[in-house]
Amino acid sequence: MSGLVSLVGAGPGDPELLTRKAAARLAEADLVLYDALVDPAVLELAGPAQRFYVGKRAGRHHVTQEQIHRIMIRAAQRGQRVVRLKGGDPFVFGRGGEEALALAEAGVAFEVVPGVSSSVAAPALAGIPVTHRGMSTGFVVVSGHAESAWQPALDSLAPGALTVVVLMGLGHRGAIAARLLARGWSAQTPAAIVWAASRAEGSTWRGTLGELAAVVLSPESASADSPGTIVVGAVVSLAEALAPAASHPITAAGGSR
Amino acid sequence: MSGLVSLVGAGPGDPELLTRKAAARLAEADLVLYDALVDPAVLELAGPAQRFYVGKRAGRHHVTQEQIHRIMIRAAQRGQRVVRLKGGDPFVFGRGGEEALALAEAGVAFEVVPGVSSSVAAPALAGIPVTHRGMSTGFVVVSGHAESAWQPALDSLAPGALTVVVLMGLGHRGAIAARLLARGWSAQTPAAIVWAASRAEGSTWRGTLGELAAVVLSPESASADSPGTIVVGAVVSLAEALAPAASHPITAAGGSR
Repeated sequence: MSGLVSLVGAGPGDPELLTRKAAARLAEADLVLYDALVDPAVLELAGPAQRFYVGKRAGRHHVTQEQIHRIMIRAAQRGQRVVRLKGGDPFVFGRGGEEALALAEAGVAFEVVPGVSSSVAAPALAGIPVTHRGMSTGFVVVSGHAESAWQPALDSLAPGALTVVVLMGLGHRGAIAARLLARGWSAQTPAAIVWAASRAEGSTWRGTLGELAAVVLSPESASADSPGTIVVGAVVSLAEALAPAASHPITAAGGSR
Repeated sequence: MSGLVSLVGAGPGDPELLTRKAAARLAEADLVLYDALVDPAVLELAGPAQRFYVGKRAGRHHVTQEQIHRIMIRAAQRGQRVVRLKGGDPFVFGRGGEEALALAEAGVAFEVVPGVSSSVAAPALAGIPVTHRGMSTGFVVVSGHAESAWQPALDSLAPGALTVVVLMGLGHRGAIAARLLARGWSAQTPAAIVWAASRAEGSTWRGTLGELAAVVLSPESASADSPGTIVVGAVVSLAEALAPAASHPITAAGGSR
């Protein structure tokens, strides 16, 4: 008898934005491994499963990536149904590919259950479409967590051509803005920061790329691991019309407008 | 009494990849307006709602964008709950922003229900993570429908830096490949075409950017509106290990490997 590991996207936070398949896998799971970016309300959809926190932000004990692989593989080999729950989509950053490779190498049955990625949903819930006719013909998604990753990614873009979405980049917002400006982006390019987009406490700052570095954030929001989303591009200006009617309240916070 | 228009993402096809919120809105809807890219199985989740096809691919009658706006606004003003159902996510191409602006201008209550975008899910279900440590620090999503849109978008990218995902670009795959090669991308860059990713009949071609133009497609797949997804970047090579274990069958089709 052999188990199954499901690499499941938990979406942007609101449990209503979980997919039906993700909810079904959670309800049937024997073991759920979850990250810091997974909203507690999503976890409540799990049935009687054992829950195990393997996030990188735990103060006391840190579970390594290799330990996560071992836990999943052993549980599946015992015949358990394992849900590996990740904020957003499992293959948009978050090392889902590495976990899938480890499972494939161990010969463990697994599947990927795509989720609603915050890269699109966080802007959308703040009234910002990442694409818009005559304004943006595409978008770029980069991780703002490590400079070694975001710097070459942003450097590879011609200024202003596409909407830029930076996930987990609030801690580096000053350096990210400075880099884009140095690469020739206009300081007047509309920019936004979206926090906790799909939750009641969600809020948005809107201004320009030139103002982005100076936005004052709470220490929690400004941490390198903060789940906030930065959006840079003309489409941010659409929130002027679309944000008030969006499904979640938008309040200015810590910024100039 | 005033209604509500929900701009709802239908996800990549499989009704199990619909969000719980989308399923709830469909069940409660009075009127559902849907596109060509929406899978019929998703529509079956609608309750007794009136269903209205407003896709661009209808042979007989073509509903204009302005007519779609008018239908939604009038229905909401009559107090109806309207679901505007779009393949993938409503704000990833598909003119969701334009519809939201029309609703806002008319003073009609609306909300956005983000969906699982094919830009991430189609590659994922074919065993391709759009990001992967040491291989891709980000990804770019462009529409391949109109050359006036994809050409400047692709031209704005430095060769090879990020994973490129082209939606609705099968009809232009030759021109897209030629453009990337002319811009300096290596002909050896791994490339894939993914069709109907989340459905039983889904299939994948994998090869290189140099081979992409020569892939033979059925006339239906090669149409400009075909919902297939092109992926270009080193991450495509991960499918070698990940595709066989993915949740859906992957079969070579029309290509060299």
